[in-house]
Amino acid sequence: MTDDTVREAAQKKPVTLLGLGAMGTALADAWLTAGHPVTVWNRNPRRAGPLAARGAAVAATAAEAVAAGRLVVLCLLDDDSVDEALAEADLTGRDLVNLTTGTPLRARDRAAWAQARGARFLDGGIMAVPPMIGVPESGGYVFYSGSSGAFEDHRDTLAVPAGTRYVGEDPGFAALHDVALLSAMYGAFSGITHAFALIRREDIDPEEFVPLLVDWLTAMVPAAHTTAARLNSGDHTTGVVSNLAMQVAGSATLVRTAEEQGVDTALLTPYLQLMERLLEEGGHDHEDTARVVDLLTR
Amino acid sequence: MTDDTVREAAQKKPVTLLGLGAMGTALADAWLTAGHPVTVWNRNPRRAGPLAARGAAVAATAAEAVAAGRLVVLCLLDDDSVDEALAEADLTGRDLVNLTTGTPLRARDRAAWAQARGARFLDGGIMAVPPMIGVPESGGYVFYSGSSGAFEDHRDTLAVPAGTRYVGEDPGFAALHDVALLSAMYGAFSGITHAFALIRREDIDPEEFVPLLVDWLTAMVPAAHTTAARLNSGDHTTGVVSNLAMQVAGSATLVRTAEEQGVDTALLTPYLQLMERLLEEGGHDHEDTARVVDLLTR
Ligand SMILES: NC(=O)c1ccc[n+]([C@@H]2O[C@H](COP(=O)([O-])OP(=O)(O)OC[C@H]3O[C@@H](n4cnc5c(N)ncnc54)[C@H](OP(=O)(O)O)[C@@H]3O)[C@@H](O)[C@H]2O)c1
Ligand SMILES: NC(=O)c1ccc[n+]([C@@H]2O[C@H](COP(=O)([O-])OP(=O)(O)OC[C@H]3O[C@@H](n4cnc5c(N)ncnc54)[C@H](OP(=O)(O)O)[C@@H]3O)[C@@H](O)[C@H]2O)c1
Repeated sequence: MTDDTVREAAQKKPVTLLGLGAMGTALADAWLTAGHPVTVWNRNPRRAGPLAARGAAVAATAAEAVAAGRLVVLCLLDDDSVDEALAEADLTGRDLVNLTTGTPLRARDRAAWAQARGARFLDGGIMAVPPMIGVPESGGYVFYSGSSGAFEDHRDTLAVPAGTRYVGEDPGFAALHDVALLSAMYGAFSGITHAFALIRREDIDPEEFVPLLVDWLTAMVPAAHTTAARLNSGDHTTGVVSNLAMQVAGSATLVRTAEEQGVDTALLTPYLQLMERLLEEGGHDHEDTARVVDLLTR
Repeated sequence: MTDDTVREAAQKKPVTLLGLGAMGTALADAWLTAGHPVTVWNRNPRRAGPLAARGAAVAATAAEAVAAGRLVVLCLLDDDSVDEALAEADLTGRDLVNLTTGTPLRARDRAAWAQARGARFLDGGIMAVPPMIGVPESGGYVFYSGSSGAFEDHRDTLAVPAGTRYVGEDPGFAALHDVALLSAMYGAFSGITHAFALIRREDIDPEEFVPLLVDWLTAMVPAAHTTAARLNSGDHTTGVVSNLAMQVAGSATLVRTAEEQGVDTALLTPYLQLMERLLEEGGHDHEDTARVVDLLTR
C-alpha cells in the first residue's frame, strides 16, 4: 500500500456483513474493492474463504461479527434467518441495515425489535441482481427507509455497492417500494408474454416484432404519470379520448384474437374484467383506467 | 389558391373515406390539410358538414363514394358496419384500406372477400388516438398488411395522417400486431395499477412514487429482447441470475405484501401461478420467464 491508499482506507468506515449468498458476496466484494474494512460472517463458513483472501476479517459467530463495528448489514435468505443469526448478538449502539427481502409489516416489526435492543434500524430493498452490484452504470439501486439518522451517517458507505434512494422514516416503505416495483414488473412481463404468445404460431420473427413491442410499451408506461395525477386530484374524467366505455368496447377484439390464436387468456382478462366491472357499476364511462386502482383496494 | 397550391393539389392523390366518427374525421382532416382531394361518406350525413366546408366532396351513398376514386379507406365501427356500408358498392379496380378494428381472422376473410370482388386489400391497425392523427411528432402510426402492391402505390398518401409500418402480405398481420401491442399495454397497466393500489393507503405521494415506477418499468421492458432471443434459439437456460426457482421463491413476498396492504391480488397472481406451474412440472428451475410464453400456447 502507498501512504495515500493507507490514509484512504483509514477514512473508509468499517462494514460488518452477515450473509454471503450470491447477493451478500457481491456486496462484500464491492466494499472490499472500495477499500472499506469488512468483517463477514456466514452460517456455512466455507463461503467466506475467497473474501478472506481479499482482506476481509472472518468472524466465527454472528455475535462476534456484530461486535466488530457500528454498521451491520444483513443479507440473509429471509426474516427467520435474521432472527436466528441475531439471537445471541448484542445490538446496543449498532446501526442495523437489513437488506433481506421481506414485507413492509415484517420490516416495521423488525425496526421495533431492533430499537428495543438499542439499535437504529434501516430496511433496504435491493433493485438489482448481483452482477449489477458495484457497477454504477448498471443503474441498480437500493431503497432505504427507517432511521434517517442512520441513513445520513452511513449514506456514503451504503452508496458503494449501488445507488441509494431513501424513501422515508417508516421502516416499511423500502419494502413497499421494492414490492410495488417488482409487482409492476410482473404486470409488464404478463403483457409481453401474452403478446409473444399471440404471434408464436405465425410466421412472425419474435426478434423483428420485439422492437415494436418495446417501443410501444416504453411510450405507454409514462401514462402512469396521468394515473398518479388523477389519484391525487380525484378528477377521473378523461372525456372522449380512450375512456373506459371505448376501452371495454375494444377489449372484445383482444379476447377474440387470443381465442383465434389459441392463446390462454389468463394474463389478459383480469384487467379487462375490472374495467367491465366499473362500467357495470355505472358513472365511470367517461373516466379512464386510473379508476381501476380503487377497485383493487376496496 | 395560388398557382403553386393548385399544382400541388393536382399531384396529391384522391382519397375516399367511409366513416366520419372520431377517428375517420381526424383522418379526413389530415388529408384535407395536406391538400388531397377527399370524398367522404357517413351513414349519418350531418357529420360530413364541417369537412364539406373545408373542401371535401360529400357522397350521398357509400357506393357513390367508392366510385369516386381508386383508394378507398374505411374507418367504421366494426366488421358488420363494413359489410353494410359496402353491400351495394362496385369494388372492381379499387384499393380497399380497412382501418376498422377487427381480429386477424376477420381481416383474412375480408381480404378474400375483397379480392373476389376485384379489389386489392390492405388491413390497418391504428396505434394512435384521434388527437395524434396528422401530428407526426405524436409518434402515432398504423400497421398495414395485405397487398404489398397497394401499399407501395399508396404509401405516400397513407403516410399523411400517421406513420406507416407494413408488416407483411398476410392480411391478418396488421390486426395481430395491433392486438398484441394493445394486449401488452394492458399487462403494463395491470402492473402499474397494482403498484398504485399497494401504496394507496400509505402516506406516499403517487406523484413522487411515479417517476420511480416509470423509470423502473422503462428499464425492465427491454428484457423482452432476451425473451425474443430465447424464443428463437430455444435456449432458455439463464443459470443463477433471476431464474424461475428464485423468482417463485420471491413471489411469496409479493403476495403477502398485497394481503398486508389489503390489495386484491387479481392482477398479480396469474403470472406468478404460471411460473409456479413450470416449476411443478420440473426441469425449468434454471430457465427464465421466456418459458411462460409456451404455457399460454399449449
Ligand atoms: N440474488 C438476487 O438477485 C437478489 C436481488 C434482490 C434481493 N435479494 C435478496 O437478498 C437476500 C439474499 O439473497 P441471495 O441471492 O444472496 O440468497 P442466497 O444466495 O440463497 O443466500 C442465502 C444466504 O442466507 C443464509 N441463510 C439461509 N438460512 C439461514 C439461517 N437460518 N441462518 C443464517 N443464515 C442463513 C445462507 O447461508 P448458508 O450459506 O449457510 O446457506 C446464505 O448466506 C434475499 O433476501 C434476497 O431476496 C437477492
Ligand atoms: N378512436 C380511437 O381512439 C381509435 C383508435 C384506434 C382505432 N380506432 C378504430 O377506428 C374505428 C372507428 O373508430 P371511431 O373512434 O371513429 O368510432 P366512432 O366515433 O364511434 O364512429 C363510428 C363510425 O362508424 C359508423 N357506423 C357505425 N355503424 C355503422 C353501420 N352499421 N353502417 C355504417 N356506418 C356505421 C358511424 O356512423 P354514424 O355516424 O352514422 O353512427 C361512425 O362513422 C373503430 O374500428 C375503432 O376501433 C379508433
